[in-house]
Amino acid sequence: MDIKGRITVVLVGTQSPGNIGMVCRAMKNMGLSDLRLVNPCRVDHPDATMFAVSARDLLEAARIYSSLGEALSDCEFSVATTRRHGKYRNEICTPGEIVEKFSGCAPQSRLALVFGREDSGLTTDELALCRWQATIPTADEYGSLNLSQAVLLFCYEFFKGALPVDPAGKTARELAGSASLEPLYDQMERTFLRIGYLNPQNPDHMMRSMRRIFSRAELDEREVSALRGLLSQIDWAAAEFKGKKGA
Amino acid sequence: MDIKGRITVVLVGTQSPGNIGMVCRAMKNMGLSDLRLVNPCRVDHPDATMFAVSARDLLEAARIYSSLGEALSDCEFSVATTRRHGKYRNEICTPGEIVEKFSGCAPQSRLALVFGREDSGLTTDELALCRWQATIPTADEYGSLNLSQAVLLFCYEFFKGALPVDPAGKTARELAGSASLEPLYDQMERTFLRIGYLNPQNPDHMMRSMRRIFSRAELDEREVSALRGLLSQIDWAAAEFKGKKGA
Repeated sequence: MDIKGRITVVLVGTQSPGNIGMVCRAMKNMGLSDLRLVNPCRVDHPDATMFAVSARDLLEAARIYSSLGEALSDCEFSVATTRRHGKYRNEICTPGEIVEKFSGCAPQSRLALVFGREDSGLTTDELALCRWQATIPTADEYGSLNLSQAVLLFCYEFFKGALPVDPAGKTARELAGSASLEPLYDQMERTFLRIGYLNPQNPDHMMRSMRRIFSRAELDEREVSALRGLLSQIDWAAAEFKGKKGA
Repeated sequence: MDIKGRITVVLVGTQSPGNIGMVCRAMKNMGLSDLRLVNPCRVDHPDATMFAVSARDLLEAARIYSSLGEALSDCEFSVATTRRHGKYRNEICTPGEIVEKFSGCAPQSRLALVFGREDSGLTTDELALCRWQATIPTADEYGSLNLSQAVLLFCYEFFKGALPVDPAGKTARELAGSASLEPLYDQMERTFLRIGYLNPQNPDHMMRSMRRIFSRAELDEREVSALRGLLSQIDWAAAEFKGKKGA
């Protein structure tokens, strides 16, 4: 499938119906069609229809979710768009880099481009659900893009990226998707709790750090298996240990 | 002068004040500031101000002309934006090609990006005043971009084109060097042997895989410490376990 057919746009907590309409138009301009809305404002507001212009079909087909996790459930890859001022800014990609990364992913996989609220973006928990983070390069003086403008620029990069056949000849190492990674992280958390590495009161802090490390590592399936084997081996030792401790 | 300081945006016959406001915002997002309006609608309409958000300074500084020729009088170069369906479509450039052309122009020269009316674009006479023609690549199904979206994409291409060679602008996250990494790998190998994860006859095979994973992860010192803490914690569990096994 054409790469554009594998891109989903997810808007989280959008406050302005006009913006939703303009996002529909921008997506259709760039050949995208799958729009998902997490807890949006009123989608049947006349502004949404007015600004969608000839992209009302996208507006009508948009699916509504009550959480980001639900909206991402069938997306193997996801990218959170953020302003560049985050703590971990060097892990933040440009839209072009995301196009390149996703070009190397499995040909059936789906990528969600996730955009937060107009005024406050995405929460820390929402960010943590996304595989990658990206920001659009802007002037330092005024970095606040309108939501639909941000969506347009991302879609435009994918549209341009889909134009020529990639001649680069990079042998695509196939990256593991979230269907593999999330069970890895679940297992990791259980094991790390068991051996007392995580604080049971606040396991998320260290787990976010682990997610960052292994996101950057761009694991393939074989490596995910190797790491899961390692965790099982630690479990095995810890189980014996626990048995002894209990004795 | 920075290439962005040599770019002028000219809007001809704009009909919607909100679009003029959004154009101001988009220009400022991408570091441009010189806006010229040829026979525009009411610029003091509240929509213009509202959509300009923090780019009202551009709106207030915009100069108004009564003909395109006048607006272009001090611009050595100019590009008319059109839909792709023109008569001479093979002479029509992409925004990226315009950036490239203008990069080769005299360093004091000025380029005008000329955008026509929302409904009917530029007249034949207006097109003839412009040096080049350009169009933004869009989906065949729906090629009509909102005016401010078209301006944004052009400005974005110039902004990207003006970025320094290392565009990431990433403040160097200080990566851990081998003085930190080698002790990490040594500790990892000892621990993994202890819990039976490595084959004592051939530990290198799996350790090479671990090195690849953690090389790609580009660990910093804090993360190396976190991982060494994890290994110590596994050691602690495994020591107890060994003790039991030995008993």
